[in-house]
Amino acid sequence: MRATTIHGLKDIRFTEVPHPVITQPTDAIVKVTASCICGSDLWSYRGENGEITEPRTIGHECLGIVEAVGADVRTVAPGDYVVVPFDHCDNTCAACRAGYQSACVNRGMTTSGQGEYARVNYADGTLVKLDAVPSDSELADLLTLTDVMATGWHAAVMSGMSTSRSGGTAVVVGDGAVGLCGVLAASVLGAERVVAMSRHESRQALARTFGATDIVAARGEEGEAAIAELTDGVGADYVLECVGTDQAMRTALHVARAGATVGFVGVPHGIDVPIRVLFDKNVGLKGGMAPVRGYLPELLALVQEGRIKPGLVFDQTLPIERVADGYRAMDERTAIKVRLTY
Amino acid sequence: MRATTIHGLKDIRFTEVPHPVITQPTDAIVKVTASCICGSDLWSYRGENGEITEPRTIGHECLGIVEAVGADVRTVAPGDYVVVPFDHCDNTCAACRAGYQSACVNRGMTTSGQGEYARVNYADGTLVKLDAVPSDSELADLLTLTDVMATGWHAAVMSGMSTSRSGGTAVVVGDGAVGLCGVLAASVLGAERVVAMSRHESRQALARTFGATDIVAARGEEGEAAIAELTDGVGADYVLECVGTDQAMRTALHVARAGATVGFVGVPHGIDVPIRVLFDKNVGLKGGMAPVRGYLPELLALVQEGRIKPGLVFDQTLPIERVADGYRAMDERTAIKVRLTY
Repeated sequence: MRATTIHGLKDIRFTEVPHPVITQPTDAIVKVTASCICGSDLWSYRGENGEITEPRTIGHECLGIVEAVGADVRTVAPGDYVVVPFDHCDNTCAACRAGYQSACVNRGMTTSGQGEYARVNYADGTLVKLDAVPSDSELADLLTLTDVMATGWHAAVMSGMSTSRSGGTAVVVGDGAVGLCGVLAASVLGAERVVAMSRHESRQALARTFGATDIVAARGEEGEAAIAELTDGVGADYVLECVGTDQAMRTALHVARAGATVGFVGVPHGIDVPIRVLFDKNVGLKGGMAPVRGYLPELLALVQEGRIKPGLVFDQTLPIERVADGYRAMDERTAIKVRLTY
Repeated sequence: MRATTIHGLKDIRFTEVPHPVITQPTDAIVKVTASCICGSDLWSYRGENGEITEPRTIGHECLGIVEAVGADVRTVAPGDYVVVPFDHCDNTCAACRAGYQSACVNRGMTTSGQGEYARVNYADGTLVKLDAVPSDSELADLLTLTDVMATGWHAAVMSGMSTSRSGGTAVVVGDGAVGLCGVLAASVLGAERVVAMSRHESRQALARTFGATDIVAARGEEGEAAIAELTDGVGADYVLECVGTDQAMRTALHVARAGATVGFVGVPHGIDVPIRVLFDKNVGLKGGMAPVRGYLPELLALVQEGRIKPGLVFDQTLPIERVADGYRAMDERTAIKVRLTY
């Protein structure tokens, strides 16, 4: 089959690789019908995850049709249309039962999501079957549920938001696709005020579409001062850190009010946690990989009821063969998020 | 008046100092009738808070009788018997209203609590009046409410415990007075299993009295392995970090199950937060100075109803003139916590 492979610094290709096969009786092989590029793919693209010494497949956001299943798979069968959470899980272990499928003892990951086929571990635990083949517009929304929308949602939940505790001010640090989905999540979860920190006009516009009530374009101390002013010096009740850099984390911790929690979902790169800031303000820090499988039923319902349109984060669509152009566009921030068609 | 003063490394004296005076109309002066030594006083005693260049008073846990009040004080009057939270607050600002009085915009602290008199800022917000002069036995319990019991309680609350979410396993890292009060808090707040990490027999015994169901004497990786075994490899639902060192924090984060939160109350000294551990397990970190004033009504009721006897942490009582012996005993861990009589 053909799949997206990474060969080195900013070297993305669409090449021939071995077709994935069933290796465990709990596996499934999915024929990918839609995929996309994740902001976290850029860490590898930019060489920030260490040197790439040999080519490997890349891509973890996809959906498609089950092609084959292992002997133990019971809940899905060849021909089923499925959403593929990027983090695979058995959905039965203690971590899964506690709602943290991303810390499943049998955790796996989609590794050829930007390819023609992908292997899924623990297919019964991981895959969510759709009743019908989605329309093209639904496809965009559903594709975000495999990672980015679930991740933005996770940032909001980790910051303490829930529909039963509405109100208050949420600040979202980061205007990438995850940050924008975080804005959408905070809005749906009932924040009275949702502040998006963004200095890009097109992203600001989408943030407003997603429910942002305020935009702060400034960064660093100036940005923190702007949030302080917006909140009468008190700080935000909920903070979503959707970047993963040290500067973003510092801003997130500084704009939080006493006792608030920073929900963080950006993969940490070079973060030095200023623990005295946490201690002095009793500001919490909680986050990590999103338990996509856990959130899927709720998010799927929101999409199907038309209450959220997270697919709007895709501002560029390319045929899978042109995936390298997609990486370049996201790296240069000329695209928020690139969808790949098959 | 006479007060405990620190003059340098392990140099504690009981000396003549100026009598505190009302400097703000919201101040009160309290004649101290009982006080004690806090584990956090040992940081200064051991020179771990920087060099002491000139003598200063020390001590922040006390109660007593109001001697004088500023012109704006309304809720307490000379002659009232009061509990003095170590962290003073106006109890009206946004942080106080959110339950984080320890981050009050007008935060103050008791600075001559191991003396004959202490100044209290924002007396109306800070002080809690008792209906009657406490008995000697009650005095010990009430004294712990000014800091140590409230701090152990805070660790439990920050880890996510509440009476409405009972059950599960709580692990308490640290067997100082705060850790032991954390054991008591976890027990009262409904943990099914409370694991005290302690290798001192007398402290283990008190931990059991306070509700510990299991004791783990091992430390570091061995201790972490013991917790893993106790929890079938899953980890603890609630973790209370009551030390403040890097090793204690690492143990706390490692024994937490996926999605649990480490409530930390040990003043951080040299802690390097391993953020990838947080991220990989979605383990949260939340804590800081306890909002003593906020917890006081609830804790006072528990003491008065006889449901908790936190005063048992005092295993040595000395006249205030012998305060230096008390510091030595706690430094050498021959005493858990020393009460000072007047």
